Amino acid sequence: MYIGIDLGGTNIAVGIVDEDGIIKFEKSCETKKERKPNEIIEDMITLVLNILDESHVQLEKIKAIGIGIPGLADINGNVIFCVNLGWKNVPLREMLENALHKPIYIDNDATVAALAEYESGSMKNCTSGLMLTLGTGIGGGIILNGEVYSGFNGVGSELGHMVIGENFYNCNCGRNGCLETFASSTAIIKHTQKLITDMNEATTIMEKAEGNINNINAKIIFECARAGDNIANLAVNRLVKYLSIGILNIINFIDPEIIALGGGVAGAGQYLLDKVIDEVNTHKYYEELPIGKIVLAKLGNKAGIIGAAMVAKHGQIN
Amino acid sequence: MYIGIDLGGTNIAVGIVDEDGIIKFEKSCETKKERKPNEIIEDMITLVLNILDESHVQLEKIKAIGIGIPGLADINGNVIFCVNLGWKNVPLREMLENALHKPIYIDNDATVAALAEYESGSMKNCTSGLMLTLGTGIGGGIILNGEVYSGFNGVGSELGHMVIGENFYNCNCGRNGCLETFASSTAIIKHTQKLITDMNEATTIMEKAEGNINNINAKIIFECARAGDNIANLAVNRLVKYLSIGILNIINFIDPEIIALGGGVAGAGQYLLDKVIDEVNTHKYYEELPIGKIVLAKLGNKAGIIGAAMVAKHGQIN
Repeated sequence: MYIGIDLGGTNIAVGIVDEDGIIKFEKSCETKKERKPNEIIEDMITLVLNILDESHVQLEKIKAIGIGIPGLADINGNVIFCVNLGWKNVPLREMLENALHKPIYIDNDATVAALAEYESGSMKNCTSGLMLTLGTGIGGGIILNGEVYSGFNGVGSELGHMVIGENFYNCNCGRNGCLETFASSTAIIKHTQKLITDMNEATTIMEKAEGNINNINAKIIFECARAGDNIANLAVNRLVKYLSIGILNIINFIDPEIIALGGGVAGAGQYLLDKVIDEVNTHKYYEELPIGKIVLAKLGNKAGIIGAAMVAKHGQIN
Repeated sequence: MYIGIDLGGTNIAVGIVDEDGIIKFEKSCETKKERKPNEIIEDMITLVLNILDESHVQLEKIKAIGIGIPGLADINGNVIFCVNLGWKNVPLREMLENALHKPIYIDNDATVAALAEYESGSMKNCTSGLMLTLGTGIGGGIILNGEVYSGFNGVGSELGHMVIGENFYNCNCGRNGCLETFASSTAIIKHTQKLITDMNEATTIMEKAEGNINNINAKIIFECARAGDNIANLAVNRLVKYLSIGILNIINFIDPEIIALGGGVAGAGQYLLDKVIDEVNTHKYYEELPIGKIVLAKLGNKAGIIGAAMVAKHGQIN
């Protein structure tokens, strides 16, 4: 058994997970991210102790603990940064090891989600898989030959910052044209707001947003697009166009067996997937090019706990 | 010992190469690409028999034969296509095996060059290396853990067709924004010709090209840029800008230990390399990001023979 901890900007979720990636017990609390790192880490420890207590699983049964963080950690388990939480240089592994006396493994949340999909979801048993998490930003996770691939310096699979074109606003990273400024939920919201302002055309989006342009979210845009709204369709089509450029770059680069789409934007489901597959097939750089499968991720927000536990499992094996 | 065959649009070069990637003997002839595939393949066979004869190396000493082709082959050694040679569905392996009775291994020329640089050049002994061949087009080769990485369907590492922006002309592949339309020799020539036509400004480029805009080549442009010519500098700076975007995408994606630049454009040497490294460091998506080394390839046009022989060596080992 392993423990997986999904550290998010809103909630901390903890689960006891078996070797096959099945969650046996889970528990969560609010992150309250305005607090100091050590207070949040205290809550993580309490959550682990409580779930063990309530589930009557003995600490000895737990081989290791894995954590998915919304940021980057170095090989010693120090969190280099979590932008969204305001963390910088936090000795997360050391603090958890001192309190729980178990091996601690830490990885980026998008990588963790990819590993979860590999162990028990949409990429199960594939030779090579790549997952794109399309949320407020875009994260990437690469699995090659059954293991997470993070590159020589551990800074690979940052696919949200792949430059694929020119955009009307800059990325948070300071550059222009990053995939996440075209195909994240933030991107489609910004583009829709721009279309509404520029086009001066009636749209059902504003009705659903109760007349407030700041209430627009990705779900509303996709719903309106399916119902035939023009502005919503322009926004969805642009997202599909650039997401497909990103996917074709991925295919031309590492040609994975499976590409899985997860995160909030992928909540648009088969409707989005069909459009993306169609666009990718239309724009392959030659017609007969054999390409991997493009699928929807299966585990939803459970991927965080499962993947974190699987990071612990892989850490113990290697 | 292995035999490496470098099948190019202009010449066929053959070499006898030892286990360490050292060329012992070599010989070449013109491709005369307007001929039929079987005539060209006949010449390849004759070249192999002649070099064995002249070098007094017995055919039994040759473990296998490797070939680098300017195109794609399937896993059975059939050439799917070589655009530049006009080949489509040519059973290259079968024809060579029948004539030479040795195991035959075929791979793309850019991949072959990457393997040569890994075995005895700029990427020697690296954990992960990526080579960009900046020629009339752009080819890519990826080495992971000592082996060529070509992806699940064998269509990976086609980095010339990574879309990274918007360009004033379309790629041969039909799309817009491919890396090779920004950073190949063809790209910098086309852009320079456009600048000369659009800007109506005196430039030393036209002197060196003897007044004929069609005589411009990459070497002339780089020479003029070093000497301070304005138009040449605009062209070089744009190439550097987009090549660096491509390299940053590579770093953010697979984070290799070494990125090697080869091909005709890399003939601009340290002058180009310094500019690229500077641009990459300026635009990393965060300042402290640790990145791999960017270097010049070492083997020049010998990489074709050496790499082809090393494809044969790896084929025999695996």
